[in-house]
Amino acid sequence: MLEEIASASARPLDPGSPLSLDTECSGDGPGRAAVDFPVAVVLPAGGSGERMGLPTPKQFCTILNRPLISYTIQAFERLSWIGTVVVVVAKENHDLMLNIVREFHHTKVKVVHGGTSRHRSIFNGLQAFSNNIDDSLTPKPKVVIIHDAVRPFVEEDLLLKITLAAKAEGASGAIRPLVSTVIATTLEGYLDHSLERAKYRASEMPQGFLYDIIFQAYQRCSEYDFDFGTECLHLALQYCGTNAKLIEGPPTLWKVTYKRDLAAAEAIIKETLSTSACVITEAAAEAVELAGTLQKNLTTQGMVVTDVIPCAKESYTDCLSKSRSFIQIAVNGSNISGVLEMVKHFENTRHAHLYPIVVVWVKLNTTKRSFDTQKTDELTTFMRLASEVKQANVQLYGIQIDHTKVSELWERSAARLADITVALIRDRNPALIGQLLQA
Amino acid sequence: MLEEIASASARPLDPGSPLSLDTECSGDGPGRAAVDFPVAVVLPAGGSGERMGLPTPKQFCTILNRPLISYTIQAFERLSWIGTVVVVVAKENHDLMLNIVREFHHTKVKVVHGGTSRHRSIFNGLQAFSNNIDDSLTPKPKVVIIHDAVRPFVEEDLLLKITLAAKAEGASGAIRPLVSTVIATTLEGYLDHSLERAKYRASEMPQGFLYDIIFQAYQRCSEYDFDFGTECLHLALQYCGTNAKLIEGPPTLWKVTYKRDLAAAEAIIKETLSTSACVITEAAAEAVELAGTLQKNLTTQGMVVTDVIPCAKESYTDCLSKSRSFIQIAVNGSNISGVLEMVKHFENTRHAHLYPIVVVWVKLNTTKRSFDTQKTDELTTFMRLASEVKQANVQLYGIQIDHTKVSELWERSAARLADITVALIRDRNPALIGQLLQA
Repeated sequence: MLEEIASASARPLDPGSPLSLDTECSGDGPGRAAVDFPVAVVLPAGGSGERMGLPTPKQFCTILNRPLISYTIQAFERLSWIGTVVVVVAKENHDLMLNIVREFHHTKVKVVHGGTSRHRSIFNGLQAFSNNIDDSLTPKPKVVIIHDAVRPFVEEDLLLKITLAAKAEGASGAIRPLVSTVIATTLEGYLDHSLERAKYRASEMPQGFLYDIIFQAYQRCSEYDFDFGTECLHLALQYCGTNAKLIEGPPTLWKVTYKRDLAAAEAIIKETLSTSACVITEAAAEAVELAGTLQKNLTTQGMVVTDVIPCAKESYTDCLSKSRSFIQIAVNGSNISGVLEMVKHFENTRHAHLYPIVVVWVKLNTTKRSFDTQKTDELTTFMRLASEVKQANVQLYGIQIDHTKVSELWERSAARLADITVALIRDRNPALIGQLLQA
Repeated sequence: MLEEIASASARPLDPGSPLSLDTECSGDGPGRAAVDFPVAVVLPAGGSGERMGLPTPKQFCTILNRPLISYTIQAFERLSWIGTVVVVVAKENHDLMLNIVREFHHTKVKVVHGGTSRHRSIFNGLQAFSNNIDDSLTPKPKVVIIHDAVRPFVEEDLLLKITLAAKAEGASGAIRPLVSTVIATTLEGYLDHSLERAKYRASEMPQGFLYDIIFQAYQRCSEYDFDFGTECLHLALQYCGTNAKLIEGPPTLWKVTYKRDLAAAEAIIKETLSTSACVITEAAAEAVELAGTLQKNLTTQGMVVTDVIPCAKESYTDCLSKSRSFIQIAVNGSNISGVLEMVKHFENTRHAHLYPIVVVWVKLNTTKRSFDTQKTDELTTFMRLASEVKQANVQLYGIQIDHTKVSELWERSAARLADITVALIRDRNPALIGQLLQA
């Protein structure tokens, strides 16, 4: 089984997935029943991203026009059993962070300033709960989860295990098998010895702690720890005698460290958004037939067609919340206003708030050359419409297909229609918005 | 500095880069002068890819229609100072591997069968040199480099360091800083202790050995080593007393392990192929002006325009080997045969052998509506041409732009032309081949 994608995308409707289509707080996920105590999050995001070698720290790099850290925040915010998310940023990024909170409608975030090292930043984050006893946004939690801003794909299932283990044992942390052998080096740069891989693990994030334990550990730790330490689990052990419970996490926990990791994260997000599509069709026989063929061809390419619905049907708006990709079939370019109706609906339901929605408008030409004579005007109208709905985070693309009774030609066109549709939905390429392609 | 991309893509013309445009053997790289002894490579590729969770083992997964292992082979094959590359594959993949060798014209490869573990496969690879003393393809090397089939971005610079250190010290290996803290766990799954990160390194590939040392180490090692060991450096130390010299490698050395890593590798390859483009233009004043504007706009988007050349110029074919992306500007759709000439040239020079070439055909319309009246025929011709040259590994896309004296409109169109051109070149999306987009 696709180990990584299985956890991030094969279950697009699993409310436990941070990329789930259900972007509202999950009221009835498994966590709500199991967690009857206050849980908060500290998200150190003070890094400068020097390893990435980019002018923008990696947590602020964008994927589909949205900063990475917003994805990570959302992974927590959508869980009803998680309270405040304290985001710790460098002072110079304070305003940037507030803008992100505003633009992406984050509601549980409190922004505090970081220190000169990772441990100092985390300590600052923890202090937000002890300083402001009266602050309703930051009551002292029973368990605090510490995570990295650059690990956006953390799932409810793991967060729940980490939280419950922290409550029971005082501390807990996610681990992964080592990918490479770890070796000790001599001072001169030679191999001293290699570690037996099976006995060791990579310590990852998230980690969970009883708030009182980790806060005490930070209060007791040395300047050396503050400046050079990196491992919270180590502090809990050294200063409070708490051996953390270790929990194996999925590979999607990996940390976005290099520029290539951004490409990988983008690929995961795009794949997740593109697992399904909804086909909306006019009632004309040719359109319905094309919808059926398209459904078959999309399925062959691994895309689930959630619904094939007539656009006239009263209840069709119910289906609009089930996917983030739509294919609208219009005969001879009629009903382009249907796109506007959909977009209005998305705005009302805030469905395009966090992720762009793709609409592929398929123009089925049944009369020859109807297009040519009015081509320029029609294309201009379409491009203008596309650039208009782009403001609402909807990406509109067009494909025209000429109806023919020559079955060989028709099959080839229908296959190409599916190829182009899948490519447009998977790539979500902004440079191609408003284009009218030919199947 | 873009740490990773700097090593993989910012120097596209560096003959030391495995993605260099110089796909022939590099006759005058730094290695040729420094290495005056025989060097060979063993590439264990017997893995089943279970971590990736794909039906195809990851070394055979394709990027731009070419299996990952072919990129890795090419990284060695192009260096004149490296002799045979012994590829060790599972028996069931023997024919697949021979097909890859044939299709991508690999000339230094010898395929041998793997064993039941990584160490057994490497030993089989090493035996290829000792068994066949008379085989001219596998003379016994002085130094043997062992690498992973799934680390395609290894550069000449590092290979040279590894080779020379192996010659001098008997063994050498690439290392990287640890990304995560390494921890020891108790049998019950609790934290035992964490290692001080600064004292340890991740052991990566390539590794280099005096052939006699590593072969002896394998002859002496135990069944337990064969079945459960993973680290060649460890065998050289334990059985021959050779402490390997450790050399820090770049982050691009990482091992393609998960499905997301394939997306990352694809992004690196595409970025490398898209750093530069060559603009070929007709002599008409409007075309030359557009070429200049396009050059400016592409540069703003980070693409280097290597040349802007008139297609009539006799020496223009000299420029065709300098890039893998071309933009041809034609007034009112004339000179579409120029594309065919280019493709013929690529076939003669084998320029599209290893990587697809992108040609963006820009149709500059100076007379209004000239397009509409003959639209269907022209588009059909263009699509047919595109599907024809695709056989030669050339991806042909079209963009039309309507000339106007209204400077605001013209600037917007020119900007969109650059946006679309960059998107087409960077994405190399096969589903869009033969489309005629509108700037």
